Amino acid sequence: MAGFNPLIESISPPPVPSVQAWARSYDGAKGPLIDLSQAVPGYPAHPHMLELLGKAASSRASTGYGPIEGEAVLRAAYAVHSAGVYHAALTAENVHITSGCNQAFICAVMAVAGAGDAVLMTNPYYFNHQTTLAMLGIGTKLVACSAERGFLPRVPDIADAITPEVKALALVSPNNPTGAVYPPALLDEIADLCQSRGIWLILDETYRDFLPDAEAQPHSLFSRPDWQDHIVSLYSFSKSFCIPGHRLGAITAGPQFVRQVAKIMDNLQICAPRAAQTAVAEAIPRLKSWREENRQEIMRRADALRAVVAGLAGWQLDAIGAYFAFIRHPHEGKSSAEVAQALAKNAGVSCIPGSYFGEGQEAYLRFAFANADVEGIRALGARLSSFSL
Amino acid sequence: MAGFNPLIESISPPPVPSVQAWARSYDGAKGPLIDLSQAVPGYPAHPHMLELLGKAASSRASTGYGPIEGEAVLRAAYAVHSAGVYHAALTAENVHITSGCNQAFICAVMAVAGAGDAVLMTNPYYFNHQTTLAMLGIGTKLVACSAERGFLPRVPDIADAITPEVKALALVSPNNPTGAVYPPALLDEIADLCQSRGIWLILDETYRDFLPDAEAQPHSLFSRPDWQDHIVSLYSFSKSFCIPGHRLGAITAGPQFVRQVAKIMDNLQICAPRAAQTAVAEAIPRLKSWREENRQEIMRRADALRAVVAGLAGWQLDAIGAYFAFIRHPHEGKSSAEVAQALAKNAGVSCIPGSYFGEGQEAYLRFAFANADVEGIRALGARLSSFSL
Repeated sequence: MAGFNPLIESISPPPVPSVQAWARSYDGAKGPLIDLSQAVPGYPAHPHMLELLGKAASSRASTGYGPIEGEAVLRAAYAVHSAGVYHAALTAENVHITSGCNQAFICAVMAVAGAGDAVLMTNPYYFNHQTTLAMLGIGTKLVACSAERGFLPRVPDIADAITPEVKALALVSPNNPTGAVYPPALLDEIADLCQSRGIWLILDETYRDFLPDAEAQPHSLFSRPDWQDHIVSLYSFSKSFCIPGHRLGAITAGPQFVRQVAKIMDNLQICAPRAAQTAVAEAIPRLKSWREENRQEIMRRADALRAVVAGLAGWQLDAIGAYFAFIRHPHEGKSSAEVAQALAKNAGVSCIPGSYFGEGQEAYLRFAFANADVEGIRALGARLSSFSL
Repeated sequence: MAGFNPLIESISPPPVPSVQAWARSYDGAKGPLIDLSQAVPGYPAHPHMLELLGKAASSRASTGYGPIEGEAVLRAAYAVHSAGVYHAALTAENVHITSGCNQAFICAVMAVAGAGDAVLMTNPYYFNHQTTLAMLGIGTKLVACSAERGFLPRVPDIADAITPEVKALALVSPNNPTGAVYPPALLDEIADLCQSRGIWLILDETYRDFLPDAEAQPHSLFSRPDWQDHIVSLYSFSKSFCIPGHRLGAITAGPQFVRQVAKIMDNLQICAPRAAQTAVAEAIPRLKSWREENRQEIMRRADALRAVVAGLAGWQLDAIGAYFAFIRHPHEGKSSAEVAQALAKNAGVSCIPGSYFGEGQEAYLRFAFANADVEGIRALGARLSSFSL
């Protein structure tokens, strides 16, 4: 038969479906499955959101092609919202809408790097970032993040890793998989480094709306002079509005960057689906207090998880943040995939093995704790304490 | 500032918005704008379609992540429909849903080619195919298609152009920009060649539902033994269901190919938006007769355009097919962009310059005649005959 692109053939199949397959073999003996695998909000979208989505999708106005960069109303609404979040002068010209944040990432990296170039990431990393780069023939360089330092990278380590083929540093804060929240001062120091070395800082902020402190500014990168020359931020509407199935994300960058992304998006899919864009544009101001309630609820879930893990012998919560916890399991010598598979099959707890996020992560499991309610998280205690391998 | 990927920097901005900008400078003196630029159905989606879209989008079931390969109901419904169209044993396993047909194309080419490889296309070509390949660092080789041969490629020319770096031949039938419909026998001969040379035939069939003969099978490629080893077909739900803004397309291929595409899609955007998928799954059987009426309507538009151009001195209809006509303008020595721009500004007729579809096409304009109704097409006669440069 005709051949496949070896870069595609050699990447692993998507990890989430394989983890979900383990969970399907759980017989329910310990109670309902506690699904902490794929990051999905464990509460439904607001009825107003569903209503807005239905109204927009049934409208003839949503059927035609839309602007490549996104609906004007959503670019404007998201810019106003972001300007408030970051206390920065962001406008619609700084926003490019995408079909989810994975697409925001691939657009951003393609804008700055091609086959033979490299992008710097942390270890552990978000697996789709790694496979996205791999399938494009873009090399990956890694900066180690240790549990001792809260899974934050050291600036000198980043500096050492920037070689001429590195075009960008890709970070995730709040982090996936560890949950680590990067302090604004660290991000600023990293941005200084990127600027001085002439590389882009691509910051994936998918979980930004679930920071512990609602009033705290996630970072001050958008207040830097010339930020548009070296900073790109990525966002997802999936988590905050509980609508991952509608695939909606955003890139915040300089207008020059937005122009490059538009060329890529035109080839990737012309424009993001329109109906969800107009619906979310209305939902951004309307569902503000509901999103704040959810943020507080997720904080309660984080507290519940902290309490549960503290009471378990051998299990250790090495990092926890907006949506995820990176937890050290007690089964030394077993691979994280063995532990996760057994947890799913025998204890009805579905999570993602640390090894999926990079080499040297065998001791860890990623718990997407935001998926489960406080009661579900409390039930986790009994499941984990009675679990053996 | 940090640099951009030169492959992205060097591709032209998306052509459709620039053509639309010319039309915005038309003062309306000759009557309403006749927009024959971007291929969009010149009639609205069916009210049932809008209703189904609204229902699906307002449902909580559409909010979560969906299967990467597409909703089971849509894969199944499209397979049943395709099995009927092609009289072939196609099943849901042969279908991967994408967010529009540009995305189907990029997924298909990434599955088989990477930077440094090449893909063979025709000249003229669909411009997004060329820019998609360029931005991935995939080389383009071209097979010339002359007006004398109805813009169909010659098989020996294709054979000569297949060098070791060529991994696939990408064709469009019914063709964009020319409208040329590739005869089944020609496609079979081309498939024989691709099979014997070990390359993929990627056939974009976006305009398949608008063939002149409703009963004629578009081709018999899916009845070839081992077709799954060398054939990939692409489709768009945008034109048939008048819903380009919902971004929905499909790849039909072997299960092994579908597995490679799923890895790419997971990185591109996890899955196509879900609501439109469940809605279209229901619409495929329900709106069958409505789609057939539209096919007939578009045939009437083609007839109207033939009559109009036949009555115009100097203008020549060199090819016409499912959605497009490739028309030779009388302004020798002027570039196709000059002619198209002046047509838009002074005559209120928006179309795409031939040069956007490849070198050597300066004598041509692409008319997306399906956009305008019969009355609008008849009005074109007076606009073109009184037009001078």
